[in-house]
Amino acid sequence: METTSPLCSENNQVFRSYAFYASILIVKWLVLSPLTGLLRKIKRAYANPEDTGDAGTQAVKQDPDVERIKRCHQNDVENITPFLILGLLYTTIDPSPVVALYTFRVFTGARFCHTLSYLAGKQPARSMSFLVGMICNLSLFAQILSSTL
Amino acid sequence: METTSPLCSENNQVFRSYAFYASILIVKWLVLSPLTGLLRKIKRAYANPEDTGDAGTQAVKQDPDVERIKRCHQNDVENITPFLILGLLYTTIDPSPVVALYTFRVFTGARFCHTLSYLAGKQPARSMSFLVGMICNLSLFAQILSSTL
Amino acid sequence: METTSPLCSENNQVFRSYAFYASILIVKWLVLSPLTGLLRKIKRAYANPEDTGDAGTQAVKQDPDVERIKRCHQNDVENITPFLILGLLYTTIDPSPVVALYTFRVFTGARFCHTLSYLAGKQPARSMSFLVGMICNLSLFAQILSSTL
Repeated sequence: METTSPLCSENNQVFRSYAFYASILIVKWLVLSPLTGLLRKIKRAYANPEDTGDAGTQAVKQDPDVERIKRCHQNDVENITPFLILGLLYTTIDPSPVVALYTFRVFTGARFCHTLSYLAGKQPARSMSFLVGMICNLSLFAQILSSTL
Repeated sequence: METTSPLCSENNQVFRSYAFYASILIVKWLVLSPLTGLLRKIKRAYANPEDTGDAGTQAVKQDPDVERIKRCHQNDVENITPFLILGLLYTTIDPSPVVALYTFRVFTGARFCHTLSYLAGKQPARSMSFLVGMICNLSLFAQILSSTL
Repeated sequence: METTSPLCSENNQVFRSYAFYASILIVKWLVLSPLTGLLRKIKRAYANPEDTGDAGTQAVKQDPDVERIKRCHQNDVENITPFLILGLLYTTIDPSPVVALYTFRVFTGARFCHTLSYLAGKQPARSMSFLVGMICNLSLFAQILSSTL
C-alpha cells in the first residue's frame, strides 16, 4: 500500500517548495492576461475588430503601453516556463532543501521585480532582475546536468 | 521491486486523466503551427524572405488572418502552459478524481471553444471560453496552494 | 525507507535521458534572450525607450535581424514547451529506453538545426528540422494516448 503521489510525500520538502513557488509564479504570469485586456479597454486599442464594441474599427491599433505589457508577458513566458521544468527536474535530484528553497525564492522575487520594473519602465532594475532570474535558471541547469551525467 | 513510474500506476486515475487531457491540448496547440504556415502560403504573406519562393520578397508582409491565428496561438502558449504545470502539481495533492476529471474536461473544452471562436472572430464566445479556462487554472492554483501551506 | 524521488531512481533510465535532453533544450532556448539583447545593442534597435541609453529615443525601432531572432525564439517556445511536457508524460508509460533515447536525441538535434538554420536564413533546412521536431512530438503524443486509453 504505497501512496500514489510520492512526489508530495510528507518528507519531500523540496517538492513542496517547488509546488508553492511555481504556483505563485504561474498566477503572476496569468494575471497579465486580464490586465492587458483591461488596458486595451482603457486605451481603446484592440487587436481584433470584433472586440472594439462602440469604439469602432479604428480602435484596432497598437498602443505603447499595451505593447509594453505584452513584452513583459512574453518575457515571463520565455523565462518562467524554463524555470517550471528545470525546477521540477531539480526536485528529483535530491538537492539540499535549503539551497533549493533559496533558489526558488530568489527566482520568484526576481521575476516579481522584473514585472514591476518592466511595467514602470525602470532601468537598470529590469535588467538586474532579469539577470538574477537567468542565473537561477542556469544554476538549476548546472546541478541537474551534473546529476544526470 | 517497486515500479519506476509510480505516477502512472493503475490506481492513479487522476494522473491518467491529466496525461490524456494534457496530450490532447498540446496537439491542439501544435496544430496551429502548420496551419499558420498553410495560411501564409494561401495568403502569400511570409515572415522571412527565404520562405517566399516564387512569390518574391514583396510577399514578406503582414496579413490580418495570419496575425489572427498567431494571436490565437500565443493565447494558447500563455494559458495552456500554466495549465500543464498546475495540472501536474494538482495530480500530486491527491484530489477527488471526479473533481479533477471535470476540471480537466472543462478546461480542455473551453480552450477548444476559444480557438474556434478566435479563428471565426466570434464574440462573446471567445471571451467567455477564455474566462472559463482562466477560472479552471485559478481553481487548480487555489487547491494546490491550500495543500502546500 | 523509500526514496522521495522515484522518478530519478537508478533504474529509471528513460527519466534520466529525458532530464538530460530537456535541460539542454531549455538552455538553448534561454540563450536566445541575451543574444537578442546583444543584437539590439549592436543594431541600436530597442523595444523600450528606457533601454536606449545614449542611442536616443529614435533607437526604439524594429530591425529585421532582431525580428528574426525573436521569431526563432518564439518557435522554440511553441515547440519545445510541448516536448517538455510530452517527454515527461512519456517517461511514466514505461517506454523502451532505446526508442525513448533516440526520440529525445532526434528532437534535440532537430531543434538545434532549426535554430541555426533560422538564424542563418537557410531553407529548406529550417522547414525540414521543424518537421522532424513536430514528428517527434506527435510520436510521443500517439504513444502516450495509446497508453492512457
